[in-house]
Amino acid sequence: MTRYPQTSPATTPLPAGFRAHTGSAGLREDGDDVVVVVNDGPAPASSAVFTRSLFAGPSVVLSRANAASGRARGLVVVAKNANVATGEQGMANAREVLDRAAASVGVPPEDLLIASTGVIGRQYPMDLLRTHLDGLAGAGFTADARAVAGAMMTTDTHPKTAVREMTTTTGATAQVVGVAKGVGMIEPDMATMIAVIFTDAAVEPGVLDAAFRAAVDDTFNCLSVDTDTSTSDTAIAFASGVAGEVAEAELREALTAVCLDLTRQLARDGEGATKLLTVEVTGARDRDQAKRVAKAILNSPLVKTAVHGADPNWGRVAMAIGKCSDDTDIDPERVTIVFGDLETYPAFPGEAELERLTEIMRAEEVTIAVDLGVTGRGPGGAADGSANDSAGDAAGGSCTVYGCDLTREYIAINADYTT
Amino acid sequence: MTRYPQTSPATTPLPAGFRAHTGSAGLREDGDDVVVVVNDGPAPASSAVFTRSLFAGPSVVLSRANAASGRARGLVVVAKNANVATGEQGMANAREVLDRAAASVGVPPEDLLIASTGVIGRQYPMDLLRTHLDGLAGAGFTADARAVAGAMMTTDTHPKTAVREMTTTTGATAQVVGVAKGVGMIEPDMATMIAVIFTDAAVEPGVLDAAFRAAVDDTFNCLSVDTDTSTSDTAIAFASGVAGEVAEAELREALTAVCLDLTRQLARDGEGATKLLTVEVTGARDRDQAKRVAKAILNSPLVKTAVHGADPNWGRVAMAIGKCSDDTDIDPERVTIVFGDLETYPAFPGEAELERLTEIMRAEEVTIAVDLGVTGRGPGGAADGSANDSAGDAAGGSCTVYGCDLTREYIAINADYTT
Repeated sequence: MTRYPQTSPATTPLPAGFRAHTGSAGLREDGDDVVVVVNDGPAPASSAVFTRSLFAGPSVVLSRANAASGRARGLVVVAKNANVATGEQGMANAREVLDRAAASVGVPPEDLLIASTGVIGRQYPMDLLRTHLDGLAGAGFTADARAVAGAMMTTDTHPKTAVREMTTTTGATAQVVGVAKGVGMIEPDMATMIAVIFTDAAVEPGVLDAAFRAAVDDTFNCLSVDTDTSTSDTAIAFASGVAGEVAEAELREALTAVCLDLTRQLARDGEGATKLLTVEVTGARDRDQAKRVAKAILNSPLVKTAVHGADPNWGRVAMAIGKCSDDTDIDPERVTIVFGDLETYPAFPGEAELERLTEIMRAEEVTIAVDLGVTGRGPGGAADGSANDSAGDAAGGSCTVYGCDLTREYIAINADYTT
Repeated sequence: MTRYPQTSPATTPLPAGFRAHTGSAGLREDGDDVVVVVNDGPAPASSAVFTRSLFAGPSVVLSRANAASGRARGLVVVAKNANVATGEQGMANAREVLDRAAASVGVPPEDLLIASTGVIGRQYPMDLLRTHLDGLAGAGFTADARAVAGAMMTTDTHPKTAVREMTTTTGATAQVVGVAKGVGMIEPDMATMIAVIFTDAAVEPGVLDAAFRAAVDDTFNCLSVDTDTSTSDTAIAFASGVAGEVAEAELREALTAVCLDLTRQLARDGEGATKLLTVEVTGARDRDQAKRVAKAILNSPLVKTAVHGADPNWGRVAMAIGKCSDDTDIDPERVTIVFGDLETYPAFPGEAELERLTEIMRAEEVTIAVDLGVTGRGPGGAADGSANDSAGDAAGGSCTVYGCDLTREYIAINADYTT
């Protein structure tokens, strides 16, 4: 598959047409905790997807309504408090945050989105937020994408940004810049943690929405750190229109590249993670089956701990495939399991191969490729090369998912502190 | 709910009609690793349920066939090697183990069952097993249930046995004695790890089968240590008939009590566990929905780590409920969440209650009770007491599940050694 570089340069300007402020309202002990981004472009367009959680909080409820127009003009992010399971008071607080931010930046409140991340079940500290938001009118809107990503962090160890360039239909250059935060409670369903993508291309809302949903489906929705789905998952794309039009295929490719770059960064920086774990499943009946099996492997605590310890225990991958017991068309005798470039099943590795497998598992990135043999292979024969299909392959029956190892540090982060 | 005592007395005789041998074939560095139990009773009956894993090994395949008669007469257990994902050689080896054991104990091989547990993807050390099994004819068959449980262990920290008495229809006493091993790769689906229940009651196979499946469904199938489903799960009940007939209700109650006792021991001894976590869900549309939500809470790594660290982070339970996003009849405004005897949602605990919650979570057993409010409650009103229903309550819409906390030691056990 194509290996996209993971980019987090020191400074990352936002595309033309956007201005951003980050500041400290006092929710975080140290550092910025509030973000406000405004789209001043001539052709504002937006697309947004949200968590399917039954316990989605007021931020998701309000943003879902305000995003429906496809013309949202900006975003407020509050870090360290998810404002979830907070009842009517939580909803009133979210509305007030949106209203005050909107008044300060001169955008109608119904054109602003809001995202919150942090502890569940606590009310916003409204006194702190009121003071901060009312001062926004006189604040500088000079933050770059890296500052935006940094102010959104919870247990992230570094800000996550990604950049790709596009060429417009008139030959000019347009940018796609993405920011994301993640690291725990991550198994996105319709969307993901918080990810925001900015582009100065001119795009109709419907085109942006279709391209963004396709990109999210192949990237953030193929990510799992710990099988827990956030109540606050939000992924948003904004286009300003400053740079001019780009072809739809160019837009899709750039959006997918930025989202995949961020997805891999989020997986690698999963809570406590020391390794990026990629699972590629091919030869499935359809993409749903491929994704189900890939997720069963990616989320197995026994596979994740084996990857962490570089334990050449490939049998645990067989176990994880076996859990998909409703997929009765999967025949163990047609399955192949490959770690890196080493086939472990049905090759039945000897001592030398187990040593080689340990080496493969010691790397910072471990890739497990499974061909289910349900489609596309002769009975008992060798794989036809489909195990090397890229993530973006349009063929049905394959899926690539992204996660990480399970470590003592994950336990420490989540048992020893309220996060 | 009824709190069954957890019994693992120093010696635990098998019921009348059974004889057992445990011995060391050399698969384990230290201690017994082979078990052979024979049912010599006048009315042998059996019932067995197995893993639904697609990668079920030859032990499960052979036992499933031999158990179909309802008249299996004995069992061979091999510890430290699961004999799974081992191809045709693995199947030939399993047949040979059964044949040699059957010849030594004088039982037709088609009346013997076999269970294996341990590493996946390695062939049995057949030289060691041949030598051991051929010597069985002259060996003592004097092992008690505790020795049987001990010889089956993998990473278990102690042997697990449970005993209940029944009264026969003529007023005599009959026994139910259970043994089990477990601890990792545990989320039974149709069955569980390895559990074997012995009774000297006289029971028709059909009656035993119905009673055993009902007991397994409420106990082993409500257990999860780590969401990973073993390829080797096997639960078997044998009846010898020596003690005479018991009423069906008496049998069901005793079987369920023994299975629940073992289930709680297995959860408490989950790999790395320091606590027993029990989740009781009531007020659901039906038992399936109750179990789905209960498992989502029980299996959430963020809930499990919060329980481990006694972090009063009840919002993670709301998150876990929210993951069941296809259950659109669950309305967060009708849900209640109770830890021990403390309501946390929608009560919105203050600082004093959070301290009390920390105390509750510090106990060796933590019980989380959730009423979904889908049935049986007035809108927004208090629970009608259904949150205190026992696990055995026949009412639809409730389910109790058993698990444990997630600790650094789970990582150590599964990352640092091949298990």
